[in-house]
Amino acid sequence: MTSPAPSRDDYPHFRTIPTRWKDNDIYGHVNNVEYYSYFDTVINAYLIEQGGLDIHRGETIGVCAESHCQFLAAIAFPAPVEAGLRVGHLGNSSVRYEIGLFDSDGGQLAEGWFVHVFVDRESRRPAVLPETVRAALEPLVTA
Amino acid sequence: MTSPAPSRDDYPHFRTIPTRWKDNDIYGHVNNVEYYSYFDTVINAYLIEQGGLDIHRGETIGVCAESHCQFLAAIAFPAPVEAGLRVGHLGNSSVRYEIGLFDSDGGQLAEGWFVHVFVDRESRRPAVLPETVRAALEPLVTA
Amino acid sequence: MTSPAPSRDDYPHFRTIPTRWKDNDIYGHVNNVEYYSYFDTVINAYLIEQGGLDIHRGETIGVCAESHCQFLAAIAFPAPVEAGLRVGHLGNSSVRYEIGLFDSDGGQLAEGWFVHVFVDRESRRPAVLPETVRAALEPLVTA
Amino acid sequence: MTSPAPSRDDYPHFRTIPTRWKDNDIYGHVNNVEYYSYFDTVINAYLIEQGGLDIHRGETIGVCAESHCQFLAAIAFPAPVEAGLRVGHLGNSSVRYEIGLFDSDGGQLAEGWFVHVFVDRESRRPAVLPETVRAALEPLVTA
Repeated sequence: MTSPAPSRDDYPHFRTIPTRWKDNDIYGHVNNVEYYSYFDTVINAYLIEQGGLDIHRGETIGVCAESHCQFLAAIAFPAPVEAGLRVGHLGNSSVRYEIGLFDSDGGQLAEGWFVHVFVDRESRRPAVLPETVRAALEPLVTA
Repeated sequence: MTSPAPSRDDYPHFRTIPTRWKDNDIYGHVNNVEYYSYFDTVINAYLIEQGGLDIHRGETIGVCAESHCQFLAAIAFPAPVEAGLRVGHLGNSSVRYEIGLFDSDGGQLAEGWFVHVFVDRESRRPAVLPETVRAALEPLVTA
Repeated sequence: MTSPAPSRDDYPHFRTIPTRWKDNDIYGHVNNVEYYSYFDTVINAYLIEQGGLDIHRGETIGVCAESHCQFLAAIAFPAPVEAGLRVGHLGNSSVRYEIGLFDSDGGQLAEGWFVHVFVDRESRRPAVLPETVRAALEPLVTA
Repeated sequence: MTSPAPSRDDYPHFRTIPTRWKDNDIYGHVNNVEYYSYFDTVINAYLIEQGGLDIHRGETIGVCAESHCQFLAAIAFPAPVEAGLRVGHLGNSSVRYEIGLFDSDGGQLAEGWFVHVFVDRESRRPAVLPETVRAALEPLVTA
């Protein structure tokens, strides 16, 4: 990693994700696996609330094709996590999100990315992003 | 509790549920919440594998109406859990399951129960148990 | 259940618990198991933030002896849950908490209870509640 | 990815990880986050059972520094997952594991990697791998 890590200012959208008791593992900090759950949560909440994605009945759904996380600092319940979201690539049927997790003081906890491929709910074959989803994601695309 | 706790012999069906790293909480043992996940797992695996319940497309689904657990002993990852299952009441549209969790040496970890109400997937109104589900559960009914 | 279910007004303490993507199960609503995770979270956050419980190094810890939940209505991600907390019994070394889960409109999702036994972290034998914990819980005791 | 994906034969160690009810998400397949839980589980179970890692009281613990997963196929509860493990790099205080997840028929579900940095439990500063851990991991190093 030769480029500097992004700061809070590099993410146009944020969602507060409070930790839960069972996020803490035996070593007293939030388990690495939960960081990916925070990714899933900030992404899908945005798609639903801003992009009108209908996860119950919509014809098109987003499935994860690849994800990655670099863990920079630990956090423990009951401290909240601030999840920042931006879009690194907005394709015809796929989206690459970039996520930054921060603590309440702005200290960075993790940096990751997550690729959604949009598919038809029944056939699970690639499908074009719904227009409302695309419109919601465009403002998050980084220069 | 005036009646003696049931032993392994009181459960006609068993499923081994290996623990996972993140089942352990900050106190070094499996978190109480996970015990209910074991309940869900032994029950639904039986309904699917023995009772032909189609969780993806079936018209009738089982939703939890009430559950309970008494925690008797701790266990920690990576030790496996042995989950025993029997049926305390088999109604027209509901089932009361009784679950015993044991360690590999037969020591009891927990005793619980769980009530499923079967409902129509769309309307979520009570529905009669599918015949294959009823047939699979009958041998588990306790005297 | 002959007595009426408690309302929001019956709980002196509340914590907002936003749902997460993976709380939703295959049936499109929050899985029953997660409700117990919300119990754990509202209880322990209160003990830590108001009662000074040191979950990392304190000599005394709370372990769950018994829990129960009656499920009244479904909720789905990304809607938040409002968790109400009160104390039904405050003993020398144990506490019975009563929890009500509500949606944002005040509709009740679930009603449950949870018994903590406080034990010595090393020996896991019952221990007297820390004074700061007792002081924090007293205002939550119901008449 | 120009090199061909590894097959089952490329992993010297395997652990069966049965899925659980709540691994399935709203789209009817195991949620992407759970794949990382399977990584954590196959790795740590091996370190504990083969490498004598004492997660309760040992001076040295392994914390995750980076992880990655490429999702190749879906699976759903109650089907079991077969998790293959090998070591891509065995350093003085860090280990890079490579994990392959397969279904019962040998079909590949996912391919990932996970970096553990071993640290002192108290100071959380890098520490040399315990000798028993190193001895257990050496046979898993790929050529």
